[in-house]
Amino acid sequence: MKKKTLINLTNNVLKKYGLNQNHSKICTNALINAELVGASSHGLSRLKMYCDRISKKLINPKPKIKIKKISQSITHIDANNSIGFVAADVGIKEAIKNAKTSGIGLVAIKNSGHYGLSGYYAEQATKKNLIAMCFTNAPPALAPYGAKKKLFGTNPICFACPTGGKIPFILDTSMSVINRGKIRLASKLGKKIKYGLALDKFGNPTRDSIKALAGVQLPIAGFRGSGLAWMVDILSGVLTGASHGGKVKDPFEDFSGPQNIGHLFIVFKSNLFLNNYTKRIKQNIKRVKKLPKIKGVKEILYPGQNKYKRYKKNMNKTINIPNEVLKDLFSL
Amino acid sequence: MKKKTLINLTNNVLKKYGLNQNHSKICTNALINAELVGASSHGLSRLKMYCDRISKKLINPKPKIKIKKISQSITHIDANNSIGFVAADVGIKEAIKNAKTSGIGLVAIKNSGHYGLSGYYAEQATKKNLIAMCFTNAPPALAPYGAKKKLFGTNPICFACPTGGKIPFILDTSMSVINRGKIRLASKLGKKIKYGLALDKFGNPTRDSIKALAGVQLPIAGFRGSGLAWMVDILSGVLTGASHGGKVKDPFEDFSGPQNIGHLFIVFKSNLFLNNYTKRIKQNIKRVKKLPKIKGVKEILYPGQNKYKRYKKNMNKTINIPNEVLKDLFSL
Repeated sequence: MKKKTLINLTNNVLKKYGLNQNHSKICTNALINAELVGASSHGLSRLKMYCDRISKKLINPKPKIKIKKISQSITHIDANNSIGFVAADVGIKEAIKNAKTSGIGLVAIKNSGHYGLSGYYAEQATKKNLIAMCFTNAPPALAPYGAKKKLFGTNPICFACPTGGKIPFILDTSMSVINRGKIRLASKLGKKIKYGLALDKFGNPTRDSIKALAGVQLPIAGFRGSGLAWMVDILSGVLTGASHGGKVKDPFEDFSGPQNIGHLFIVFKSNLFLNNYTKRIKQNIKRVKKLPKIKGVKEILYPGQNKYKRYKKNMNKTINIPNEVLKDLFSL
Repeated sequence: MKKKTLINLTNNVLKKYGLNQNHSKICTNALINAELVGASSHGLSRLKMYCDRISKKLINPKPKIKIKKISQSITHIDANNSIGFVAADVGIKEAIKNAKTSGIGLVAIKNSGHYGLSGYYAEQATKKNLIAMCFTNAPPALAPYGAKKKLFGTNPICFACPTGGKIPFILDTSMSVINRGKIRLASKLGKKIKYGLALDKFGNPTRDSIKALAGVQLPIAGFRGSGLAWMVDILSGVLTGASHGGKVKDPFEDFSGPQNIGHLFIVFKSNLFLNNYTKRIKQNIKRVKKLPKIKGVKEILYPGQNKYKRYKKNMNKTINIPNEVLKDLFSL
């Protein structure tokens, strides 16, 4: 389907569900961006879920977002159960403002929801020559090290910095071996997943995406990944006032209340300590790229480069949307 | 050997090599702490290396450390090639001060050296009810994703927060499957390592610890761990003015100049956004601990608990030092 058609369609759906023009645009941009960068698991396949939660009054389409300034650098935001995209957009803009004013911005957000890709927000900071770290928690998906029941979300760690070129460095890495959204999409499309990514609810390895969703995903690197996922839960959940410790609700399955996801953004100037940051980051990337490559690798890419390539490639093409998802979109 | 004897011995060695009383004490405490928490690879096995580098004028035993205040929150430190322990001690104290004053402290350090365990510094922040993140780069040990030559260090990510109890949450995780120090210790003791941890210099898996040191360690979780190691290099190397992109010198092997390692510390108040942080973190930990456990696990531990247990156990016992290391110690 043509990009423009999809944008209009999505915009209209969101406005129909009560979002104002501005909020609807923020959400549409984030959803379409996910499709363009090839992260369709975070794209339009989620639109029906967002609308369902608005209908059930679990997402507030007309939130009164409270921005509490704690200092020049520090802000606490109560997103009033807004859709996550809007909360994160307000949050990253505040963090950017704080960083521009004082060198560093720290923003905590509570009462938010799933906001899509962390990298989408971090990228906004890189455009202002800032460094960004974004943390968000998520519904239970990963078993803590030693446990056989899921509790941590896929809890991504996102780090982004300008590179002096047009493609920023954007690491946006889930703490699960693969993204929960990808397993969900596979289950929606009736596809199998690879072995080693998840356990079923009895603790056995499974390739069945539906069983994997009901079971436990494996964190990366054993206790290391488990610890990092825990860190993200503390930063974005415990500190901010959001749900934490396995209490973030699954947006697809749990309609007993708002998700109350939390986010934490740390943003600071890339040239705080040196006036030749750009030269140095270019040099850094060049050194890595010049290394001898393993068989089959043409170029060593930095995080964000692949996504950008997909974005460029998809920009002027029609966007492929699975029939299942299209059906949802039209019915909305 | 008795703890007190070891402390005196280490202190005297360091003073003999030109450190003043205060700096010598800082280093000794850090080294002995590493032994007590069971991280002997970061303990006295390194003392000879530090002394060798002082003799060769690559570590400055009498550094003029420059502390440049950028704002109430932000400080840039030039450690003047001090021993890493001293640079990190000055740095974390500055970060703590900034956080106490303004809510958040960001401290970048250049011209430093290997500082032992990140968790040792982060713990100082938790004692003041602060959250800490510590990043440091290190000599090449890990091959970036797609490369067959090492470039990133083991580049640990450290996150620590108070728990309301006496044992803080301290995640201090290398981006390699196991610590380079542990491979080095194995090679010193003539021990083999497990398969899957490292490749030899031809890119083949190896259990030989000496071949592994000459070859390439594997990062955790493929491109995810590679990206995180890269992030740490940017935060602690590119931004701070330290060496980066594979240019940090190996302290054991490269005597062509100072290491110029960089560190970055982010410290902030745990109760910035809420007045019930302690209650929430306790609740968070309790929820994880209450999960059903996998076979053979008695208790789910949070990061730092194991280390603390070892510390408690070792506190009043004699410290076991391998003969090789003791021999070095006496000859110094």
